[in-house]
Amino acid sequence: MPREVTSFSNALVKQARGLRDKKNRKREGLFLAEGLRILTEARETGVLPQTLFFSDASHRLLKELIDEVEAAGGEAIETSADILHKISGKDNPQTVLGMFPAFDTALDAIDRASAPLWIVAQSLRDPGNIGTILRTGDAVGAGGLILVDDSADPFSVEAVRASMGALFTQKIAQARWEDFVAWLRSGPGQLVGTSLKASADYQDARYEKPAFILVGNEQAGLPAAYEAECDLLVKMPMLGRADSLNAAVATAVMAYEVINQWRRR
Amino acid sequence: MPREVTSFSNALVKQARGLRDKKNRKREGLFLAEGLRILTEARETGVLPQTLFFSDASHRLLKELIDEVEAAGGEAIETSADILHKISGKDNPQTVLGMFPAFDTALDAIDRASAPLWIVAQSLRDPGNIGTILRTGDAVGAGGLILVDDSADPFSVEAVRASMGALFTQKIAQARWEDFVAWLRSGPGQLVGTSLKASADYQDARYEKPAFILVGNEQAGLPAAYEAECDLLVKMPMLGRADSLNAAVATAVMAYEVINQWRRR
Repeated sequence: MPREVTSFSNALVKQARGLRDKKNRKREGLFLAEGLRILTEARETGVLPQTLFFSDASHRLLKELIDEVEAAGGEAIETSADILHKISGKDNPQTVLGMFPAFDTALDAIDRASAPLWIVAQSLRDPGNIGTILRTGDAVGAGGLILVDDSADPFSVEAVRASMGALFTQKIAQARWEDFVAWLRSGPGQLVGTSLKASADYQDARYEKPAFILVGNEQAGLPAAYEAECDLLVKMPMLGRADSLNAAVATAVMAYEVINQWRRR
Repeated sequence: MPREVTSFSNALVKQARGLRDKKNRKREGLFLAEGLRILTEARETGVLPQTLFFSDASHRLLKELIDEVEAAGGEAIETSADILHKISGKDNPQTVLGMFPAFDTALDAIDRASAPLWIVAQSLRDPGNIGTILRTGDAVGAGGLILVDDSADPFSVEAVRASMGALFTQKIAQARWEDFVAWLRSGPGQLVGTSLKASADYQDARYEKPAFILVGNEQAGLPAAYEAECDLLVKMPMLGRADSLNAAVATAVMAYEVINQWRRR
């Protein structure tokens, strides 16, 4: 049976609220995901929150989720919309919010043979971009996202939200560039970067499986040494005044070209 | 000569700060854009702020901008980083910020013959998506963005920032759906929607100029009646569990397919 919590000073409420901060997420090895849609997505991929907060259990899917969380030894906590608001910090809080154990993000946990396409992002600053790239990764059948160097936190509330649940279907790894390159070169894999300096149109290149699409930081793009490591450097047409696209947009345009080419073969 | 303003209670500082609110932007017919990159983009397309706030005029491009703003009868105001922070609300404020007269967003101001491609977005809620779509529009050589029904404000600080200056190179119109359809059908134009219900793969359709790519609201997608109005309904491959992409990502993937097809003809 769900326990009822009505106090802002409840220890679990305080713990959950603290997870909006990266240092607390890291220390506790936990993160938050909100909304029935995202939590249902997680459940369908076999991932349950260890603690579930909800304010209105009238939805059938939420009832089922509560039962499953409790059957798995987790805790379901009925609380108020006010407290959910306090935890999530959103003006229009979802009626449900889950606290999940963070995933293992070691590069060694990635099985490159499990998917034809992987996305590698270097020093992304915007957690919304990370979430959007995860969502795109799911759509193009990618295996996951490898975050290279210092990056925004993929387990931040903003990233989880923008991923629309893809956080639970895509593998996520974090690594230094040197370690990523060593790992990449220990097996098959074509590293594909986009660059203004590239001479090859992205539609003329031939993409091989597994392909690793490399995306650079939002402001600075890819460092020259990272470009030099790429097996293919391609450019997308830029017909206007701007010389770049939003990082998540560029990733998607590139990824769709790769899978479209594979669809035609 | 730039005037120096050091007081938070200065009338212009208060006015600029107020422009973070939509109702003030609307009442005053003004909006804010920040950062030397975006202001330089505006200047290169012939658009100058009526008031310019800056805290550090050591950059050559900023010096030139100050001179041009003053030559055009505008005002340049030297102030502190603290006051720029107060105006923009950002923790790391840019060193320059401009106050611009809002553009005319009447549909009649759009000359469809001026570009082969236009983007139409319905009820977008996220100003970041609007800005990102403007940036993509610039990259694909679109003429502009037509915002249909109730939409986030394209002149909000978030939208201007995400557009990376494309707000100044893309035309922007706002219209009710009925008015947009009447205008669209008064001339040539192929209305292209993406839909899960579509049977045509987006790579098999044939796009005609001028093409109008129609994007739906982030949560709900396009209403059925809007889909029914489309000349073409196409679907993008979705290889994972998700049934949709981020709105700005979907727009970009669609727009690149259209221009790629035209490049091959």
